[in-house]
Amino acid sequence: MMQAMDSQLWAVVPAGGAGTRLWPLSRAASPKFLHDLTGTGRSLLQQTRDRLTPLVGDRILVVTGAAHRAAVGGQLPGLDPGRVLAEPHGRDSMAAIGWAAALVEREDPEALIASFAADHVITDEEAFRACVREAAAVAEQDLVVTIGIEPDRPATGFGYIRAGAPLAGFPTARAVESFVEKPDAERAAQYVASGRYRWNGGMFVARARVLLDLLAAEHPELAAGLRRLAAEPERLTEIWPRLTRIAIDHAVAEPAAAAGRVAVVPGAFGWADLGDYAALAELLGDRHPSESGLLVLGEDAGVVGVDSDGLVVPGSGRLVAVLGMRGVVVVDTEDALLVTTLDRAQQVKSVLEAVKDTGRPDLA
Amino acid sequence: MMQAMDSQLWAVVPAGGAGTRLWPLSRAASPKFLHDLTGTGRSLLQQTRDRLTPLVGDRILVVTGAAHRAAVGGQLPGLDPGRVLAEPHGRDSMAAIGWAAALVEREDPEALIASFAADHVITDEEAFRACVREAAAVAEQDLVVTIGIEPDRPATGFGYIRAGAPLAGFPTARAVESFVEKPDAERAAQYVASGRYRWNGGMFVARARVLLDLLAAEHPELAAGLRRLAAEPERLTEIWPRLTRIAIDHAVAEPAAAAGRVAVVPGAFGWADLGDYAALAELLGDRHPSESGLLVLGEDAGVVGVDSDGLVVPGSGRLVAVLGMRGVVVVDTEDALLVTTLDRAQQVKSVLEAVKDTGRPDLA
Repeated sequence: MMQAMDSQLWAVVPAGGAGTRLWPLSRAASPKFLHDLTGTGRSLLQQTRDRLTPLVGDRILVVTGAAHRAAVGGQLPGLDPGRVLAEPHGRDSMAAIGWAAALVEREDPEALIASFAADHVITDEEAFRACVREAAAVAEQDLVVTIGIEPDRPATGFGYIRAGAPLAGFPTARAVESFVEKPDAERAAQYVASGRYRWNGGMFVARARVLLDLLAAEHPELAAGLRRLAAEPERLTEIWPRLTRIAIDHAVAEPAAAAGRVAVVPGAFGWADLGDYAALAELLGDRHPSESGLLVLGEDAGVVGVDSDGLVVPGSGRLVAVLGMRGVVVVDTEDALLVTTLDRAQQVKSVLEAVKDTGRPDLA
Repeated sequence: MMQAMDSQLWAVVPAGGAGTRLWPLSRAASPKFLHDLTGTGRSLLQQTRDRLTPLVGDRILVVTGAAHRAAVGGQLPGLDPGRVLAEPHGRDSMAAIGWAAALVEREDPEALIASFAADHVITDEEAFRACVREAAAVAEQDLVVTIGIEPDRPATGFGYIRAGAPLAGFPTARAVESFVEKPDAERAAQYVASGRYRWNGGMFVARARVLLDLLAAEHPELAAGLRRLAAEPERLTEIWPRLTRIAIDHAVAEPAAAAGRVAVVPGAFGWADLGDYAALAELLGDRHPSESGLLVLGEDAGVVGVDSDGLVVPGSGRLVAVLGMRGVVVVDTEDALLVTTLDRAQQVKSVLEAVKDTGRPDLA
């Protein structure tokens, strides 16, 4: 399934998102992508770079908040500091990815960019890279290409991609008929049963020029602003606040799909966005079955479980002992401890709000 | 209900017991009686002394393990160090209380001793002291007097005292027919319904001479050993290991009751032995109703609860956040954390065993 690419490929890695459902592990000051959430010794950001290096070498641009520039640089030794783009503040994914696209376009308008979030987990990296190579080859046809993840369950937490006819000349690529919003459970089940839908993991490959031209057709001021920023980087603080806040899906992917300019390469490489502790437990359950019955992110020796199951994150060096708990979640950090259940994993944000309300914004 | 006493009264406070069901708050190296388990700023030992001082002044003898002598002395400033008796190792309650009794007997054979555990909680101290005064007056009749706690529920965790006929000349005292072991639930319900039974809280009042003479009748070697120890304290390490290991209930109280030499003064002063976290929660629930739904032993500000109830002990200075937990128990200390439920409170010892097994005996 290896595809030849004639054009140079750049990776763009938007590193944003606070990961509020992963509090207290993830904080505003230390978001999810900076953490080792898989017990491998590498942060999600580092794993993202590791997985892209065989595809792009050092042609990688990380776009992150100014507050995280130093941490990102520290985690990616050897990366030219100029390849960490620091947003003065968040202006959604089109501005972040478009900024990187405009910089690449100035260097080589025909170059391809491939965008991947900094905080996703991918299990089968070879399969992932094969998908990206096919996607890049398709993108050389001046299409926007998304990688659509083969669903293994009728998830309601992701948008879906509806695939159309196969693309001639490529092993697996298909046209995209449409992007659809996060479905309810019934609709998700229909999508998965039909075999025509893939999860939208937010992975896009396109020529830098093509992406920005498609953007210009819909949002000319935003495209112009991004190209101006690439030409005159010293005007960042002036230009950035004027850029339209919009997600890349709405700004480019959906209109381009309607115009027949988007393809999808299906991917079955084991993917997770680790949005909450239930997702983390699911991942650890696949990788680290534990005799104690508890899934542990970190040192097993730091956890004692008696007649219990669930997830424990022993992050403070203290012993965590759990007795008679079903589906428990215990997240122990230096300055804050969370006790909840896997069933409540989606509601962790409500605790975070309560923490802010009770006078400890420093812990949020 | 105030009773005149003609004889001098001494308090004897056995300070022992590891409180294993209160791990990780209570440790072998720092047992329950040294901790403030009621949120009053005073340890259980200190509260015990505070409550006895109006009765006995500084005539108090604390009997504790050698390892805890310094901590006990540190918590009881102003107490003559000679009044902290350090056991080379534990030899059960008869040796502990008998040692103190023998010392008091040498000073004044007719003096009364009143023995109270160092780790019990008493709510109505005036009512408690009135009971002790009546018990002391009864003890001057050369009886052994126990204070029997009025049961407020059919508890299965305590022994019971079966009361007989009222004692002439005293407001509430009765003869004791027998001491009975911890009952099952059905029997406990019968006991409480009958109105004839009181809980055995291990509180005894007797003349020092009477207690030791009754002991001598059943266990002459033990009584002789204790009197020898009082006469020749420098022989402690020689005499102590030879003393019979036996509880005061079996050694004196039960045989004396059978011989008609024991009385009971009923007490309704709010009593708890705080044996486990469920008992602690019950006590805190009576005293500190909390808006968050969680009972907190310590600083409320250190706890955030969302849709939860149960008990939180924030003992490390870190924030404890609890989401969607019913009847949870979270005990947070500097080096160990316990998460369980009130229903499992009795089984905390099993966690402690697991902690020892997994190579952290230092935390036990």
